[in-house]
Amino acid sequence: MSNRPIGIFDSGVGGLTVMREMIRQLPGEHFVYLGDTARVPYGNRGAETVCRYALNAASFLRDHRVKALVVACNTASAFALDALRDQLDIPVFGVIEPVARQAAEHTESSEIAVLGTRGTIRSGAYKHTLLNLRAGLDVHSIACPLLVPLAEEGWLEGNVTDEVLARYLTPIADTATDTVILGCTHYPILRNAIGEATERLPLATPALLDSASATTAAVAEQLGDAGLLRGDDSGVGTRTFCLTDLPERFAATAELFFGRPLDGECRHVNITDDPTSTTE
Amino acid sequence: MSNRPIGIFDSGVGGLTVMREMIRQLPGEHFVYLGDTARVPYGNRGAETVCRYALNAASFLRDHRVKALVVACNTASAFALDALRDQLDIPVFGVIEPVARQAAEHTESSEIAVLGTRGTIRSGAYKHTLLNLRAGLDVHSIACPLLVPLAEEGWLEGNVTDEVLARYLTPIADTATDTVILGCTHYPILRNAIGEATERLPLATPALLDSASATTAAVAEQLGDAGLLRGDDSGVGTRTFCLTDLPERFAATAELFFGRPLDGECRHVNITDDPTSTTE
Repeated sequence: MSNRPIGIFDSGVGGLTVMREMIRQLPGEHFVYLGDTARVPYGNRGAETVCRYALNAASFLRDHRVKALVVACNTASAFALDALRDQLDIPVFGVIEPVARQAAEHTESSEIAVLGTRGTIRSGAYKHTLLNLRAGLDVHSIACPLLVPLAEEGWLEGNVTDEVLARYLTPIADTATDTVILGCTHYPILRNAIGEATERLPLATPALLDSASATTAAVAEQLGDAGLLRGDDSGVGTRTFCLTDLPERFAATAELFFGRPLDGECRHVNITDDPTSTTE
Repeated sequence: MSNRPIGIFDSGVGGLTVMREMIRQLPGEHFVYLGDTARVPYGNRGAETVCRYALNAASFLRDHRVKALVVACNTASAFALDALRDQLDIPVFGVIEPVARQAAEHTESSEIAVLGTRGTIRSGAYKHTLLNLRAGLDVHSIACPLLVPLAEEGWLEGNVTDEVLARYLTPIADTATDTVILGCTHYPILRNAIGEATERLPLATPALLDSASATTAAVAEQLGDAGLLRGDDSGVGTRTFCLTDLPERFAATAELFFGRPLDGECRHVNITDDPTSTTE
């Protein structure tokens, strides 16, 4: 049993959709969330830059004595997981592998669509992971750079959102896709609109899978097996939110993704752009 | 007469619309462009962070012995101009004041609309500048966070762009606005779509003003008066493009804003997050 917190890292606030699910499934755990809001978004940055930023963040969370690191950012999960596992002596979880496993198990047609930012899609991480899990899958990878700003604008339904989704989903209209991975932590709040957009396609309505619950299940299982969770009678855990920038609309946007007001301490922190040192 | 280059700084590639106009009007000048692509966009960051980033960039360009600094980024022009002028002993130009002056002189109805990123609009910089130039103006400030990703996606026309613009322009539909400021360096490439969207409004078609030509005119005048331009017979100047990140699609996006392939040396540089030192 360990009372140390679980660290959750994202480039911004999208990872709060993952934290929300972690709290739901593991209410007794302490959580420290680090959102690198000063450098968000990672999606259009090069692999080397993303890797360096992820190491900066991991160094900061290590100083907070986290017992596990959840990389709740698809771009960082795609580019930086190996580097993070090299540097850290705690379990490191990405958001790609758990949901990819779920998708590979779920599909009957063997056709899976992955929606993601340009960076995530370009990395090929979902495709590689899916093909490693089950060779012969037909993976349709679709970069959807407008979905993050749509989500952050709060335009979760309406003409614009419908038009954007229709355009992005065109490549799978005539396929047998039966499983769609929401490959970005922002997308769960667009889930209804994405679901309705897939219903308007000529294909049979596919399942929409996101990483939050799959990743949380993986964390719960591995930390549970290792005896690293807090006891069931430990009471409700604490939540700390650390942000590298606190722009004016932060609270409103954060609540959109967290599903309710942030129920914990919010701190503005500086992480130095050097993997070997951090300051607060 | 000075053979030193003119430095142009932007958070990303949008400032290339300004550089393009500078080259057109001042073809004999040498230019060094710095795009902070590793930390783009600035539009949703806090004032303090934007200020620090701008000082980092200025420090880098000072090491390149620029004779003037053009801040071709609306967010940095809004937040960091005073700090930059404090730190530097060369002329510093923002992109807000010149176009605001043009708009204040142009309007007959005294109603001006400003389209910008959330950061620019939140800063109130255009509104304050306009009201300082001409008290009694009625300024309609409209945050349009989806226009930058639309421009970068290259969706310069079509249903989505039209729907987004119609939604953003609704607040001025029933006004007497006769002048619209494109308050973001990305917007000139959406100029046709914005023009058509204003034509669909019930108001008389307004003038669209952008900062590139107004800023260039201000630079030409002030450096000319100070005898700091290169001679007319100096031949075509050199262009150097420095980027803090070089993502895969950089060239394609850059050409969209520059209007043609980048005709100069492209360097990937690191600027340290400390205003007092830079490395390359």
